[in-house]
Amino acid sequence: MPQSTAEIQNYLDENAERFQNELCDWLRLASVSTDSKFAGDVRAAADWLLTRFQNLGFESQIIETVGHPIVYAETPPVADAPVVLVYGHYDVQPPDPLDLWDAPPFEPTIRNGNVYARGATDDKGQLLTHVLSCEGWMKTAGKLPLQIKFLVEGEEECGSEGLNEFLAGKYDGDGPRVEDRLAADICVISDCSQYGPGQPAITYGLRGITYFELRVNGPNRDLHSGSFGGAVTNPANALSKILSGLIDGDGRIQIPGFYDDVIDLTPRERKEYESLNFDEAAYQQDLGVAATTGESGYTTLERRWARPTFDVNGLWSGYQGEGAKTVLPAKAGAKFSFRLVPNQDPVKIAEGLRQRITELCPPGVNFELVDMHGAPGALVPLENPFMEPAAKAIEKGFGTRPVFIRGGGSIPLVGSIKQQLGMDTLLLGWGQDDDNPHSPNEKFSLEDFQKGIKASAWLWQEISQINKSS
Amino acid sequence: MPQSTAEIQNYLDENAERFQNELCDWLRLASVSTDSKFAGDVRAAADWLLTRFQNLGFESQIIETVGHPIVYAETPPVADAPVVLVYGHYDVQPPDPLDLWDAPPFEPTIRNGNVYARGATDDKGQLLTHVLSCEGWMKTAGKLPLQIKFLVEGEEECGSEGLNEFLAGKYDGDGPRVEDRLAADICVISDCSQYGPGQPAITYGLRGITYFELRVNGPNRDLHSGSFGGAVTNPANALSKILSGLIDGDGRIQIPGFYDDVIDLTPRERKEYESLNFDEAAYQQDLGVAATTGESGYTTLERRWARPTFDVNGLWSGYQGEGAKTVLPAKAGAKFSFRLVPNQDPVKIAEGLRQRITELCPPGVNFELVDMHGAPGALVPLENPFMEPAAKAIEKGFGTRPVFIRGGGSIPLVGSIKQQLGMDTLLLGWGQDDDNPHSPNEKFSLEDFQKGIKASAWLWQEISQINKSS
Repeated sequence: MPQSTAEIQNYLDENAERFQNELCDWLRLASVSTDSKFAGDVRAAADWLLTRFQNLGFESQIIETVGHPIVYAETPPVADAPVVLVYGHYDVQPPDPLDLWDAPPFEPTIRNGNVYARGATDDKGQLLTHVLSCEGWMKTAGKLPLQIKFLVEGEEECGSEGLNEFLAGKYDGDGPRVEDRLAADICVISDCSQYGPGQPAITYGLRGITYFELRVNGPNRDLHSGSFGGAVTNPANALSKILSGLIDGDGRIQIPGFYDDVIDLTPRERKEYESLNFDEAAYQQDLGVAATTGESGYTTLERRWARPTFDVNGLWSGYQGEGAKTVLPAKAGAKFSFRLVPNQDPVKIAEGLRQRITELCPPGVNFELVDMHGAPGALVPLENPFMEPAAKAIEKGFGTRPVFIRGGGSIPLVGSIKQQLGMDTLLLGWGQDDDNPHSPNEKFSLEDFQKGIKASAWLWQEISQINKSS
Repeated sequence: MPQSTAEIQNYLDENAERFQNELCDWLRLASVSTDSKFAGDVRAAADWLLTRFQNLGFESQIIETVGHPIVYAETPPVADAPVVLVYGHYDVQPPDPLDLWDAPPFEPTIRNGNVYARGATDDKGQLLTHVLSCEGWMKTAGKLPLQIKFLVEGEEECGSEGLNEFLAGKYDGDGPRVEDRLAADICVISDCSQYGPGQPAITYGLRGITYFELRVNGPNRDLHSGSFGGAVTNPANALSKILSGLIDGDGRIQIPGFYDDVIDLTPRERKEYESLNFDEAAYQQDLGVAATTGESGYTTLERRWARPTFDVNGLWSGYQGEGAKTVLPAKAGAKFSFRLVPNQDPVKIAEGLRQRITELCPPGVNFELVDMHGAPGALVPLENPFMEPAAKAIEKGFGTRPVFIRGGGSIPLVGSIKQQLGMDTLLLGWGQDDDNPHSPNEKFSLEDFQKGIKASAWLWQEISQINKSS
């Protein structure tokens, strides 16, 4: 913020308390998207944000969808500067179980420097930092140094049906195509966590996922294991054999072509992770396990963030009650999933899996494999031109240079943005791992909130310096 | 029945209808042992049998136990002739579900040559054949050619607690020790099936069993498979690996020493089974399987009757509901059992199993192995001196020479009789596989009932010819 740096900083400092109050106002609106009895509050939360954008003079509108509306706003174009798409969501998780909250979920309370309320960190508090940083620019410099487009949905916690239809062009009507409307050089999402308290981070990669249900069918009825044991293939035995045949003792997944498209960790990435001094002992103690385990040749962080995995998510067969029942079950089933790393294709994995299970399935039983859902991973190379500006902005806002991490989970939207809008996403999380985003006593650190606003203000400045034509 | 053969035969024929009526009288007493509201009927069924023995002039008594009483009777000793112990039970399974019966379960009805009632085949009808054959002898020859001891319990369907205590000597008091009281040369039990209609059989072997529950414990709570997948051992993955490591692709169980004590099939046994012309195609069609499978090198009958097996009886872990849940479960569990063949020791198997699971269990999880119950198998060599007399008697009673078969299931009592009383058991089943012993519409063929009485009458004659001193 060359000429007006001090001015914006001052403005943000002077208005910090009001910002906090505004966040609390928004948190009071119980925008639980999945439960229709909150529909009025969902709409009120959308309107609240729309008004916020309108007060800043941004071109703003409510986009009606099949479900809850999208709030869209954009600032004026700035020649030769990059365009940023900011995504967020104004809806929240249901607050249940209510009796586990120390204070009512929609009556924000401040304790120990945190604001406690449903939606505090996920995602109202984090999203609002980007709106307020814009206010800082508008009220001091009178304009932003680049164009920002805000895309804020109200169904992130209940399936994003409206957003998906919007991205698929279903609401384009006579207006511009959605790809043109949302066209930008980079997407920014603040809806995740820092690496730890005082350790801001840029999450530059996510794993994908592909999830299956496998049903193994044997005889047409449950049989007596005495009379029939030894005559027919036991579906539960067969299921165990199939599942154990999908991964070897070194944690390598045994599916044809599974590793073909895996992008290996770069030496720089491995060094970045190593520098985090991950506390293995504390991690084990927290989980109550005697050892961390997984694919040979990789550290725990590498395995969690950048290596594919195979996990059985559910298992069932035969008798699960007390005592003994000598049944040879007619059926057995499992749910399982693979976390994929960037560049692995869920469709290709599913094909290899089917081939492998066909090999592993013993005679006398047959199987059904249901492909439940898949999403590719996402990766923004550390060398991406937006990475260093983002790191600088965070360093200025938080006083600490961010670390570069990946997320082990999957955010399908990041893949959709890449696929449908052609842009990468920077995940700049201001939250903490213990913010309880889907649990009682959700919170957000007010210090992180204010630092997030500052980092965001710097982010527009830093990104605006990127020469688009270079 | 040398001198009086024709006389006994005639007597049995002349009284056939009364025998049938007497069976129906007994079946009317709803002796459901597991449900205390039937306690009066259980007692009445015991008394009915006691009276039956008393009317024949046998030394008879009710032996009170911790549960339902034992009915005991014995005929006078016969010098130089073998002694036979006949075991049976007068209690029955609960009749539920009642609405699936075509006629009330305790109002015996005759249809298509069968008597339909709970207990018809299991075991009142089958046991009664031995009582009525004694009547035939008593009313014609005036005595039996050997001594018979009847041991009839009322808790076979609910755990046999009283009988087990009786066999352990708990009710001996000042009287003779139970081993002396029940001392005999052979035990006869009719509480199973023929090989098929018109194909009477001697079941000369049973499999044992040893049943376990395995619990695999990983992290102290369910985890998100995205954030944690790749860091810790998944208990459901580990369980699959352990279970599949207990048996190889050839159906050979992978436990140290597992096959050490297995008694191999003799060439005569294999020939006997082959002669049964087991209908593989009909069996597969009935079960709805494309193939029968199991240990390499053995036929289906051999595998069912005379080879040990490993069957998973139950499996559970993580999420079993609809849809997908990306959980890395904290726990996984299985129930499984081995059918053992004669001479395998359940205790030794359990030790080998524990060793094998310890080898197979991956780091990062631990396991609990619960040994739920075990019973050894039983085998009476075909060369046993009682075998051929029994075969002859059945041939005379049924008009067809019996086949020699084994049972795939386990009858722990047969092991107890061997272990505590030192005698082998001949299982002479007069029932059929479709008699529904534990299901609605239990039945017993009246023709098999009458033939069973005759075969039993011949049995006493044939066995009495065995020279005890030879």
